[in-house]
Amino acid sequence: MPSDDYDWQEIRLTYGVTPPKRSLSEERRREIAAIQSARISALPIDALIVYDLQDESSRTDVERPFPFMQTIDPLDYAFDYLKDVPQKKIVYRSVSGLDEAGLLEWLRRLDGHGGAGVFVGAPSQRQTIRLGLTDAYRLRASKGPAVPLGGVLIAERHDARGGEDARVFRKMERGCSFFITQAAYSTTASKNVLSDLFYRGQVEGREIPPILITLSPCGSEKTLEFMRWLGVSVPRWLENDLLHAQDILEKSIDLAISGFQELYAFACEKGLALGVNVESVSLRKAEIDASVEMVNRVATILGRR
Amino acid sequence: MPSDDYDWQEIRLTYGVTPPKRSLSEERRREIAAIQSARISALPIDALIVYDLQDESSRTDVERPFPFMQTIDPLDYAFDYLKDVPQKKIVYRSVSGLDEAGLLEWLRRLDGHGGAGVFVGAPSQRQTIRLGLTDAYRLRASKGPAVPLGGVLIAERHDARGGEDARVFRKMERGCSFFITQAAYSTTASKNVLSDLFYRGQVEGREIPPILITLSPCGSEKTLEFMRWLGVSVPRWLENDLLHAQDILEKSIDLAISGFQELYAFACEKGLALGVNVESVSLRKAEIDASVEMVNRVATILGRR
Repeated sequence: MPSDDYDWQEIRLTYGVTPPKRSLSEERRREIAAIQSARISALPIDALIVYDLQDESSRTDVERPFPFMQTIDPLDYAFDYLKDVPQKKIVYRSVSGLDEAGLLEWLRRLDGHGGAGVFVGAPSQRQTIRLGLTDAYRLRASKGPAVPLGGVLIAERHDARGGEDARVFRKMERGCSFFITQAAYSTTASKNVLSDLFYRGQVEGREIPPILITLSPCGSEKTLEFMRWLGVSVPRWLENDLLHAQDILEKSIDLAISGFQELYAFACEKGLALGVNVESVSLRKAEIDASVEMVNRVATILGRR
Repeated sequence: MPSDDYDWQEIRLTYGVTPPKRSLSEERRREIAAIQSARISALPIDALIVYDLQDESSRTDVERPFPFMQTIDPLDYAFDYLKDVPQKKIVYRSVSGLDEAGLLEWLRRLDGHGGAGVFVGAPSQRQTIRLGLTDAYRLRASKGPAVPLGGVLIAERHDARGGEDARVFRKMERGCSFFITQAAYSTTASKNVLSDLFYRGQVEGREIPPILITLSPCGSEKTLEFMRWLGVSVPRWLENDLLHAQDILEKSIDLAISGFQELYAFACEKGLALGVNVESVSLRKAEIDASVEMVNRVATILGRR
């Protein structure tokens, strides 16, 4: 499959999954993959995202609400286990533990399958870094195959110290053609970075890339705690509404959808290409159903149904 | 006019003005009052608010964008100069410069006119305080006439250090029956404090008082700077949209109105009595017209027209 048969400027709706834990038996892995495969194939999405889970414990001294588990290699999971999924595939790759040869090898495998990649940097300075994000981009540009790349956009980072707008343009120069946020619960934080990006684009005469806002169902107080642990900014009122809801999961979908509607109106007015990535990182049936409902509701907003 | 002919629980729409500068001739003051009087009388508002301008320079080391000017006494302005305005009147009073006798005298005058009052505390600890806010409430309760009182609610204070929800209930115990915010540009900050107030009210079995969100047209970059100087939180995206607007004043009305619509939907869902105070503190014709337009648009949202 050639990697250039899809125009990544057109990407608007994706679905993100985590590979199964490495500790599972091969049989169980294949079972999970078969169920996911059937579900994902039916979704009105442009691409499937397979995440590369990182421990991230080096980022904070607060205890991780859920224990970190090693998973199957995301690239293997995307193209072997989920080979029946017909949609395009985007594979995340944490680059800090790789060396140059490792990254080039990974890029070649990805290219062979016609996938797109997203490089993820180290979660903190405290971690030992073999390969930095900038090095990874440079390596792909100089020696690697020209696989399509997405970049990570973090609104919270922009609110805290600015510069995310400039960083997006820099990443575009380094090969990224679309961007994906982390789970977004603060529409204000998202609007702030979109706004700065838009006005900087006007001043510098640059195109704004497609941006996918990640929506993530939240099924429990512990998941909410985990979001916060990951650095996701959750406005006080939204946290209150979730914690007091009769059905926290259903409430989280309603709030995420109405937040996206607000962002979408904001983006359309400015001519920005805004889309959604629905994150489904839980294996609980209710949360999986919720993620499918989210995809369908977003597809309606985007005029796909 | 007795002070109890109006149910202050029903208050939803007010209009706030600043008295003319004391340096103006009596003739000029009366001219301004006559023009304001005609304009205000025609507004679909429950009450007129007359502010008591404070210097507030003690609050910050940053230079005040607009120089501070002494004005005519707000109570005189409300009931003498604006005597033809038929609506109820709410007079702000900075209490920190008063002594006990002064406050009691002021309350008696207000009571004689059938007005409501809003006590304002010192803008900072740096200022010399003769009478604190708590003392003022105590004095009214123990020795003063039972004039209706409104309280000030500041969402930014709640975002910064919390406790504004508890403060509202404490002020209610001390005699406040409705609340007015400072100029609100951050719907998230407003939602946060409304949410905490709502859920605290549920836990403690308390009624939530009517809350008037203050909307303020912004006609120039300098006004925006002044808002920030006053401690008003302005989200980055909104600041961007204002500063890049072809017509900043018209844009500020549109943004304020859509912000209020969002808050109003949020409040209605929770059964909160949310209203609006439109602030008109400029003497520029365009900004005055803008404030009138705002009142009319809010009246439509509130189902008054």
